[in-house]
Amino acid sequence: MNKHKYENIAMILEDQIKGKVLLPGDKLPSLRRLCTDHDISQSTALSVYDLLQAGGYAESRDRSGYFVSRLSGRIAALPFSSQPAGKESAQNLDKLAEEIFSTAGTGHIKFSYGAPSSKLLPVARLNKELVKAARNLESGGTAYTETQGNEKLRRQVIRHAPHLGSLKPDDLITTSGCNNALALALMATTSPGDRVGVESPYYFGLSGLARSLGIKLVELPCHALTGPDLEMLECILQKRQLQAIIVVSNFSNPMGGLMPPANKEHLVKLIERFQIPLIEDDIYGDIYFGKQRPDTCKSYDSSGLVLLCSSFTKTIAPGYRVGWIAPGKFREKVLQLKLSFMVCSASLTEEAIAGFMETSYYQKHLKQLRQTLYANYLQYSDVIGRYFPEGTRLSQPQGGLFLWVEFDSEINTLQLFKQAIRLGISIAPGQLFTREKQFSNCMRLNFGLPWNPQLEQALKTIGHLAKMLGKTTNKLNN
Amino acid sequence: MNKHKYENIAMILEDQIKGKVLLPGDKLPSLRRLCTDHDISQSTALSVYDLLQAGGYAESRDRSGYFVSRLSGRIAALPFSSQPAGKESAQNLDKLAEEIFSTAGTGHIKFSYGAPSSKLLPVARLNKELVKAARNLESGGTAYTETQGNEKLRRQVIRHAPHLGSLKPDDLITTSGCNNALALALMATTSPGDRVGVESPYYFGLSGLARSLGIKLVELPCHALTGPDLEMLECILQKRQLQAIIVVSNFSNPMGGLMPPANKEHLVKLIERFQIPLIEDDIYGDIYFGKQRPDTCKSYDSSGLVLLCSSFTKTIAPGYRVGWIAPGKFREKVLQLKLSFMVCSASLTEEAIAGFMETSYYQKHLKQLRQTLYANYLQYSDVIGRYFPEGTRLSQPQGGLFLWVEFDSEINTLQLFKQAIRLGISIAPGQLFTREKQFSNCMRLNFGLPWNPQLEQALKTIGHLAKMLGKTTNKLNN
Repeated sequence: MNKHKYENIAMILEDQIKGKVLLPGDKLPSLRRLCTDHDISQSTALSVYDLLQAGGYAESRDRSGYFVSRLSGRIAALPFSSQPAGKESAQNLDKLAEEIFSTAGTGHIKFSYGAPSSKLLPVARLNKELVKAARNLESGGTAYTETQGNEKLRRQVIRHAPHLGSLKPDDLITTSGCNNALALALMATTSPGDRVGVESPYYFGLSGLARSLGIKLVELPCHALTGPDLEMLECILQKRQLQAIIVVSNFSNPMGGLMPPANKEHLVKLIERFQIPLIEDDIYGDIYFGKQRPDTCKSYDSSGLVLLCSSFTKTIAPGYRVGWIAPGKFREKVLQLKLSFMVCSASLTEEAIAGFMETSYYQKHLKQLRQTLYANYLQYSDVIGRYFPEGTRLSQPQGGLFLWVEFDSEINTLQLFKQAIRLGISIAPGQLFTREKQFSNCMRLNFGLPWNPQLEQALKTIGHLAKMLGKTTNKLNN
Repeated sequence: MNKHKYENIAMILEDQIKGKVLLPGDKLPSLRRLCTDHDISQSTALSVYDLLQAGGYAESRDRSGYFVSRLSGRIAALPFSSQPAGKESAQNLDKLAEEIFSTAGTGHIKFSYGAPSSKLLPVARLNKELVKAARNLESGGTAYTETQGNEKLRRQVIRHAPHLGSLKPDDLITTSGCNNALALALMATTSPGDRVGVESPYYFGLSGLARSLGIKLVELPCHALTGPDLEMLECILQKRQLQAIIVVSNFSNPMGGLMPPANKEHLVKLIERFQIPLIEDDIYGDIYFGKQRPDTCKSYDSSGLVLLCSSFTKTIAPGYRVGWIAPGKFREKVLQLKLSFMVCSASLTEEAIAGFMETSYYQKHLKQLRQTLYANYLQYSDVIGRYFPEGTRLSQPQGGLFLWVEFDSEINTLQLFKQAIRLGISIAPGQLFTREKQFSNCMRLNFGLPWNPQLEQALKTIGHLAKMLGKTTNKLNN
């Protein structure tokens, strides 16, 4: 069978990597260079790197180009698109989530946790800001405030967010964390019985929310690197089967996908064409490993159909419960819902975060957090490459908090969870992130924990347990 | 027409009051004394005082007996039961509420406000507790906490609440204020299309909540003094027309009714018989003017059908957004809903309030707040008696924050609102508290504002405006 031209070019580069001509971390030729050297189009050049990334040989860094993967030759990247079949498994996701999170005691190493460790957070500075907030706010923060939320906070969000396009502080409404923003967005845009598209795998918190609101989640095929498969999505939309869509556009949870700007623009055009709202969860957007913050679908939105949700849970303080939503044309409805469900926000924590964002430490903190997380990601990948079973595949997130691990199909991560929890280690099994029968050999690992010998040992232990599980299953099958 | 015996006895006492034999504030004969003196039953004696109260001649003080009303001879008490007819008016309550609360600027005198002024709140002590909380909490309060909420706070609630019967800290779940507790309770017990009974008039915040959840509110006839008319309620329940009931059992909003213990017990038996949940809002229960804190329906609940909701909004800090719910048999469902809608509470404000409740200042503060509010109530009543139009009727709350004023029918309080707001005074017109065509000549006044000459003047101004409105309408009608 004849190979495509891009496959041949990829093969040349793969050989150079395997032959150590190119070493892990080395910069690979730019797209332009590849086009000139091989007389190919830009899209063919992109295909070359897609293939190399899928094989685990290359990794892209936003706006810096492509590099030889530090994992090359040891562990493969996730090559696949998820292919949800629309068949639900019988398991109760909420129960599973409760079991998994309630069994993790305070002394446990929580790879299953959904936020950075507070050791990576600016705790001392926040305490200072809290004291200032109690002093600055009228009545020390004891009085009701405007339902829309702290004005200073809304201003600071806009100030630090060039990726939000032309949004103004008045376009934002504060919420009690991002989950609460998603809840308000769903209530404002859907009715019981509606079908809402989500990525597959998806953030399991949406499951209980959907059930409470009587809506049905429909899992959409996704690419590990670039998020929702837009061609497939268009087919589904043409059948008029969805009333809304939720995406984590930047560094999705759990797979880590990053929608390229062109995909974001395309997605917005799609939802405008079919006139359905897009709920965009950008909670990880500030934790990018590349040079520049990725943009949002919202920045391509001129119709007001995009409801952008975010919070400070992944960057400043999960326990403060401060988030926000830019609800577009659903502004009045969301405001009314917030009034009905909670009257207004707690003013102290909003003011404290706004105060922190006014200082120069905010950007310094974000920069440091990103560096720490990127270093952790590399450390994790290194240990996983050396200690996890052969055949393990690993996501290559360009930001966020999570690694997605895919074992060979015989390794069941729910069993792995049960064994690991006895040793004081908790992981998030893949089944948490789907209502279908898939991902039973996958797991999500949080790399937002401080790197130390104990953590390294815990990772090795997971690898060891997975190897044992693989062997047991193989024996049973033979 | 022959008078009933109780009417004759009431007439004797009324004459003594009118003839200044008994002076305002004098103690009236005890129920037992009345029985012995007139050879009547206890229930006939109660009817005597009901009649005197309705005429504005007597007022009851919890466990202290009856006294000559300080308003006697000047202004009448509310004599009526509300009689909602089940016919909805066309007005949009949410819009009206928004209009009324958005027009009140910061410099305004807000009789419309729904919480005590922060001048009556322990702001300095809370600030101290906040600093302590940031120091005490793991990670300075930046980390996620248990969904059920701060354990210390749940313990303190139980410690200070003998009226909660046998409840334990584990029976409580913290919420983001009482409104949020009501929202969770409604979501846990109802489905879209359900009909939920509420007092008439009722707290307008329920209106937006009901609309968001797709449930219909049904107004129940209520007595100004004792809350829901339980005989009427039984008829409605027999027709199986309600799927849940919400009551403010102590010092209702806006009319100020206090359900007697026997009524609470009766109501719990009713809902048990018909197996429908009772959502009890006890947010004002700690602000009693009598000797003892009133009890709750929850304390009579053995079936788990009562969901008790409360918060610290009316006693400590509206802006902290800290409340709780004791959801009875709906505990798991409420916990799941809280997890889905907000993951967990903000830990700092919960810890600060718990810290404050651990100190001896909590009870001292409550005592002082009650004294201030009672003194204010008397001041308000005095000014209203002297400056409001003839024919004005006034509630006689035994606690809480609100006076309910009923003018003669030609005085429209929406017009009054519009005139007063131009003078920097905001009131809450009666139409806010009903979906039916009633209460257009009523208004709610918050007496939780610090008493001073400016406030007194503002009250007089309302009286003056009401008199002018009455005259204009009379002229137009002649």
